[in-house]
Amino acid sequence: MNTQNITITLSETKKEKPQSDQLEFGQVFTDHMFMMDYTEELGWHDPRIVPYQPITLDPASMIFHYGQSVFEGLKAYLTEDERILLFRPEKNFQRLNKSNDRLCIPEIDEELALTALKQLIETDREWIPTAEGTSLYIRPFVISTEPYLGVAPSGSYKFIMILSPVGSYYKEGIHPVKIAVETQFVRAVNGGTGTAKTGGNYASSLKAQEVSGKMGYSQVLWLDGVEKKYIEEVGSMNVFFKINGEIITPALNGSILQGVTRTSIIELLKYWNIPVTERRISMEEVRQAHKNGTLEEAFGTGTAAVISPIGEFFWQDEKLLINEGKTGELSKKLYDTLTGIQRGKLEDPLDWVVEVTKASSLSTVR
Amino acid sequence: MNTQNITITLSETKKEKPQSDQLEFGQVFTDHMFMMDYTEELGWHDPRIVPYQPITLDPASMIFHYGQSVFEGLKAYLTEDERILLFRPEKNFQRLNKSNDRLCIPEIDEELALTALKQLIETDREWIPTAEGTSLYIRPFVISTEPYLGVAPSGSYKFIMILSPVGSYYKEGIHPVKIAVETQFVRAVNGGTGTAKTGGNYASSLKAQEVSGKMGYSQVLWLDGVEKKYIEEVGSMNVFFKINGEIITPALNGSILQGVTRTSIIELLKYWNIPVTERRISMEEVRQAHKNGTLEEAFGTGTAAVISPIGEFFWQDEKLLINEGKTGELSKKLYDTLTGIQRGKLEDPLDWVVEVTKASSLSTVR
Repeated sequence: MNTQNITITLSETKKEKPQSDQLEFGQVFTDHMFMMDYTEELGWHDPRIVPYQPITLDPASMIFHYGQSVFEGLKAYLTEDERILLFRPEKNFQRLNKSNDRLCIPEIDEELALTALKQLIETDREWIPTAEGTSLYIRPFVISTEPYLGVAPSGSYKFIMILSPVGSYYKEGIHPVKIAVETQFVRAVNGGTGTAKTGGNYASSLKAQEVSGKMGYSQVLWLDGVEKKYIEEVGSMNVFFKINGEIITPALNGSILQGVTRTSIIELLKYWNIPVTERRISMEEVRQAHKNGTLEEAFGTGTAAVISPIGEFFWQDEKLLINEGKTGELSKKLYDTLTGIQRGKLEDPLDWVVEVTKASSLSTVR
Repeated sequence: MNTQNITITLSETKKEKPQSDQLEFGQVFTDHMFMMDYTEELGWHDPRIVPYQPITLDPASMIFHYGQSVFEGLKAYLTEDERILLFRPEKNFQRLNKSNDRLCIPEIDEELALTALKQLIETDREWIPTAEGTSLYIRPFVISTEPYLGVAPSGSYKFIMILSPVGSYYKEGIHPVKIAVETQFVRAVNGGTGTAKTGGNYASSLKAQEVSGKMGYSQVLWLDGVEKKYIEEVGSMNVFFKINGEIITPALNGSILQGVTRTSIIELLKYWNIPVTERRISMEEVRQAHKNGTLEEAFGTGTAAVISPIGEFFWQDEKLLINEGKTGELSKKLYDTLTGIQRGKLEDPLDWVVEVTKASSLSTVR
């Protein structure tokens, strides 16, 4: 794949940009998008940046029926000296291809995808918000487009990237969230699609979220689908516990999504020489730790929220209050460090950030 | 909901119809489609029959990201005396709403949906094929359309019905299929979405199908996601066994789809006073029955294939040949009876077929 061939068609009109301090999550989109098509004859072809526009598909297109799709989520930041930074974007495109493999979607050239993303961001750089807590959210996704009702991998696809200036995922900001432990519904099971970032995992989570939302909990903690004992994820984030000084996160067991933030937290803790363990952890262990006073902190990790401290778990009619419902010291330190690195305010000792420069996004404007 | 308000806009051009004896499955669509929209303000509104046309959606529409969608599948048949018959369509719309509930999609008026379907079929009645084994396949589906990247139920939806003249689902016709027992991948688990007809279940099944396809098996037999011992479904069908005279099908355990054909087979067997048991059945039990010569028949049931005899299971490096790889007597009798009733060739003792008449599809043509 020749990455020089990305064409750019600029939008003739520019949309009005929202106030940087009034942004919500994922509701406003920029002036341009990236698009590339796949057919069996041509493979992935025609990579192009075009004005943000609707997609027109036959009603029999497979995406509408059999959910063959994958997506990613990452962010771009504008530093005070106007440099554009991405956070470990290569990890997202690697995972996109892992998801593609699980969903029988043809592999995408990761280098081309990253180059295209840089060009797209450069094209819409005026859209990157600068207010505290804001960023440019990036949504790469692949949809199956063949108009055919047989249950089989699609013969055609679209790979698209759209950009959205966003505020904090949680309106409360870094304040702790209350989480209900889900005992009825299951997110994923070994042998299923839990390790892939695909629509079906999120569709299946809506019901649990709706039920817990009515009880006043903003997210659910997922337990394993086999014994309903062991902790998997929280909402659409990975989860960490600090128990008696030990940092614990569920091991990648075949049904948990390997979050880029999760990986980065583990690497950062190791860099700080703070012990971190990836292992199986049961909800009963968390309750016992709460009971004997050793449950010091709990937090979720994900691109959208970065670090989301957990102030309370609700499980089996019992409320487990954590750190008096306040943000823990470690959660705060991780949040400050990670967002500091992401925004270019702190040193980047593990070489995570990637700068978007004009040189890194050569293209043909037509 | 006033069912009188379905408007019809007729297509100005008519597509060429395929030869009735050269039909494949789900590749050709008729001249019209039904569409209805949902918004939080108006609820489900604007039910309409329009020319078959592409759907135009914002790239941020939830269906492209979080898979919030459901679908159904049923068939219409043209009898020799030119009556149009549907097979238990109310069951499909009941299940559509069960799926809607699991996926947090607002309920659809089942009576309106059925009236709309009748009108749509009446409008495209020339498309119903007549050759042996052919029918008009009907695909109702709901997609989430709100352009928003937060993980939450969509605020807007489209309910669409499209029609496709089809041949037999399996090119081999009623000939037995070879099935690989899936030991790595899992279709669904209790607490997941296995009982709902939603895209994610089908997306997750593609990989297993691809792997078994390379081994020469046309479908997989799914085992339970917890112990990987008990039989759930076969491909996108329910499954039945005849062991030592007893007809057995896996009980509805919270992860199996309740097929309309499955229900009808059970009711038909009971009507015939043939004992049928819904219970847990392990693959080991099937192997033992094969070993001692009591595994008489096995077959899948579903709308697309109706009855699909199973000639061989492959499990743990062992091939279990059933009935010498030939279609069993009961499988054949069930296939002949069910398709006979569906096509109006046989008496309908259990009152299953619903006739589409002009009177049953009153409408406003504009």
